[in-house]
Amino acid sequence: MKLVIIGGDAAGMSAASRTKRLDPAAEVVVIEQTRDVSYSACGMPYNIADPARLMDDLIVRPVEEFQQKMGIQVMTGHRVQSIDPLERMVSAVGPEGKEIDVPYDNLLIATGARPIIPDLPGFDLPGVLALKSLSQGRAIKDYLNTHAVKQVAIIGMGYIGLEMCEAFSNLGLAVTMIKPNPDLLPWMPREMAATVAQELKDNYIRIDAGNTIQAIESTKGRLKVRGDRDAHQADMVLVAVGVRPNSELAANAGLALGPAGAVAVDHGLRTSDQSIFAAGDCADAFHVVTGEKTWIPLALRANRAGWAVADQVCGNGTMLPGIAGTTVFKVFDLEVARTGLNKKEARRAGFEPVEVTITTRSRAHAHPGSTSIQVHMVADQKSGRLLGAQMVGKEGAAHRINAAAVALHGQMTVAQFLQCDLSYAPPFGPVWDPLLTAANQLIKKL
Amino acid sequence: MKLVIIGGDAAGMSAASRTKRLDPAAEVVVIEQTRDVSYSACGMPYNIADPARLMDDLIVRPVEEFQQKMGIQVMTGHRVQSIDPLERMVSAVGPEGKEIDVPYDNLLIATGARPIIPDLPGFDLPGVLALKSLSQGRAIKDYLNTHAVKQVAIIGMGYIGLEMCEAFSNLGLAVTMIKPNPDLLPWMPREMAATVAQELKDNYIRIDAGNTIQAIESTKGRLKVRGDRDAHQADMVLVAVGVRPNSELAANAGLALGPAGAVAVDHGLRTSDQSIFAAGDCADAFHVVTGEKTWIPLALRANRAGWAVADQVCGNGTMLPGIAGTTVFKVFDLEVARTGLNKKEARRAGFEPVEVTITTRSRAHAHPGSTSIQVHMVADQKSGRLLGAQMVGKEGAAHRINAAAVALHGQMTVAQFLQCDLSYAPPFGPVWDPLLTAANQLIKKL
Repeated sequence: MKLVIIGGDAAGMSAASRTKRLDPAAEVVVIEQTRDVSYSACGMPYNIADPARLMDDLIVRPVEEFQQKMGIQVMTGHRVQSIDPLERMVSAVGPEGKEIDVPYDNLLIATGARPIIPDLPGFDLPGVLALKSLSQGRAIKDYLNTHAVKQVAIIGMGYIGLEMCEAFSNLGLAVTMIKPNPDLLPWMPREMAATVAQELKDNYIRIDAGNTIQAIESTKGRLKVRGDRDAHQADMVLVAVGVRPNSELAANAGLALGPAGAVAVDHGLRTSDQSIFAAGDCADAFHVVTGEKTWIPLALRANRAGWAVADQVCGNGTMLPGIAGTTVFKVFDLEVARTGLNKKEARRAGFEPVEVTITTRSRAHAHPGSTSIQVHMVADQKSGRLLGAQMVGKEGAAHRINAAAVALHGQMTVAQFLQCDLSYAPPFGPVWDPLLTAANQLIKKL
Repeated sequence: MKLVIIGGDAAGMSAASRTKRLDPAAEVVVIEQTRDVSYSACGMPYNIADPARLMDDLIVRPVEEFQQKMGIQVMTGHRVQSIDPLERMVSAVGPEGKEIDVPYDNLLIATGARPIIPDLPGFDLPGVLALKSLSQGRAIKDYLNTHAVKQVAIIGMGYIGLEMCEAFSNLGLAVTMIKPNPDLLPWMPREMAATVAQELKDNYIRIDAGNTIQAIESTKGRLKVRGDRDAHQADMVLVAVGVRPNSELAANAGLALGPAGAVAVDHGLRTSDQSIFAAGDCADAFHVVTGEKTWIPLALRANRAGWAVADQVCGNGTMLPGIAGTTVFKVFDLEVARTGLNKKEARRAGFEPVEVTITTRSRAHAHPGSTSIQVHMVADQKSGRLLGAQMVGKEGAAHRINAAAVALHGQMTVAQFLQCDLSYAPPFGPVWDPLLTAANQLIKKL
């Protein structure tokens, strides 16, 4: 069995390694357009924040290890041009322009996602950078090392923008965040987004929300982000308005696409062609709450899907139930976490959403060091089902959210979740965990 | 409707308050033998650790508030002598020895638990103290304030012993922990108990495990804990060998008892007498994993059961599914957490337990500040069901355990739990949450 994998990051290398473990006789070829495989992309903001660290710290396993120890053929610097599903053949171009055809029994498309770069003037200027691949991480780090950067403008306010905001701030840079939507974190209730906004202000971050970017200009060796309302000078601009799936190869091969143009896959990660799988940020997924297709590119899903593809090609029919969209990120001293649907998404999915937002404490009554923690929870009026939760606080949000995530996987009602026996000790929380307090308020509305 | 409640702590006052909220016309009488109601008992070790704090900081609501604002009659200093289920009457003795009979429509027994004091010589000496009630907490604090205590011996090594060990150590006292069982934390895998032992040693705690206490002696103004192997001098001795339910009143009234002699209750907290409920540390509970009765006295359960009794007497048939036995405690810089069954308990309950213990990291690959985290997980060979989990680490155990607890409530298999979409960001954990890594190892054995 010959498995060819396009893309050597989380999904691709997980699939490659596990296939070789399960079936040492399998031939596994990874075709990667950059020179990097198997790195911790999510670690880049923290790496950039520390000038003493090399970007290569984030490489989990070097290419040599995959090749020599694990017997995986890794073709870095090779860019796949096309897939021929009938011939079961991939055509790639090597570093010196040499074309090569690679036949496969099974193919995994693990091409990931790329930052969206608005089609506006100046987004191709030097110093206008984005962050998704390790090479883009190196480019940011190199730019900081070789230019007198004092001011950074970040366009967009998703979690990459927010993590990078903290990273730049830790480097002593002045940061301005600019976004067209006047609401910060529009997927979040306003009172919780306000907590995040306050944390940014407390850390001297300038926020310009509601300013639609028109262009980036280069003036006297500096950059200027020009919006319809205000302009901001900067020495460097980070474009972080979102990512899109790298699904062109799949689309050109005639494979079906799903939400956001991601490659459509079934619970076994198979595309519309039975010999072709897709996994990671380029592929869609089922949402465990709605049962419908969704596209939420996340690292755990990429790793898990890579493993599942290995199981599939080795004859073990692992099916992935889907994702809950559980995410967490750090913004200075705040932990921001979510799982499942917010009210708007719930309504769109056909539920009758009821929601509650509470503020409680991170530790027990009278326990020193206690801080505020906000919890938002959404349920379905008809079925009583828990649909989603969000948390913001200085401690106790990042891991707590997982209890709600497991409840979503278990299709629990709020009443069932409310009865869960969660941990309690004064240094770690109130007797009633903040999630339970929220559930208790929410159930009154059902 | 007249609800009489014996015992004014977590379960009793939760029931009292909620009954008055649900039915303002209800007559609610609380009979409490001490002068304290509604306090955070679990906060006592942290209060004792801080000489600047008053023990009364732990009182959540004063008696006056219950009486005047909420219309609850609180009879402190009254000790119930007997319950007459036929006459629906409780007989109590007041502060000056005055007897009083209190009739009820519904009765709640919320008498809690008390420390086990071994029937050995010297356990009644001054300076030999235990910790469960607020008055016992005051006694410890008073003793420390009025005696030149430099050395403390703690008999027992449950979580109260361990929390108090940290408290005494924070006060600058030398602490020796003595227990007859040579295994520290015998409910825990040895390699994880060793982590706790190392943390104690790193904090200069002397551990004398495997020494069976014979007596406590008083010599020259000091105490001596004499075991069959060694003797330990101390200025104060804390007896923390466990607690037992205060179920004598119930037993004398002819009510059925359950495990450990706790008052037997159904899912609606009703005892074998339909007008009498029991809740909190004096009552038993169903275990959600085994479906069988168990006795695990915990604060959340006490509060929840108190609420459920209020719902019952106000005509709402809330049924509690049961407990998972989720507990967490802090030992110096360690978080120790568990939920569900360990292997021995699982075997006793008729499962075919399979277990795994892993060591992984608390944060992502290459993320600064990452520490070691151990996870133990137990599953049933026959059904594949997750039966229990334990965690020990310097960060990330206290809240993570809740994800496993919810899975136990959802009767999930390890395979189902393994598919849960848990949160990931480099500062908070590895891509595969430690619980998922453990589940992944465990599933290989199933």
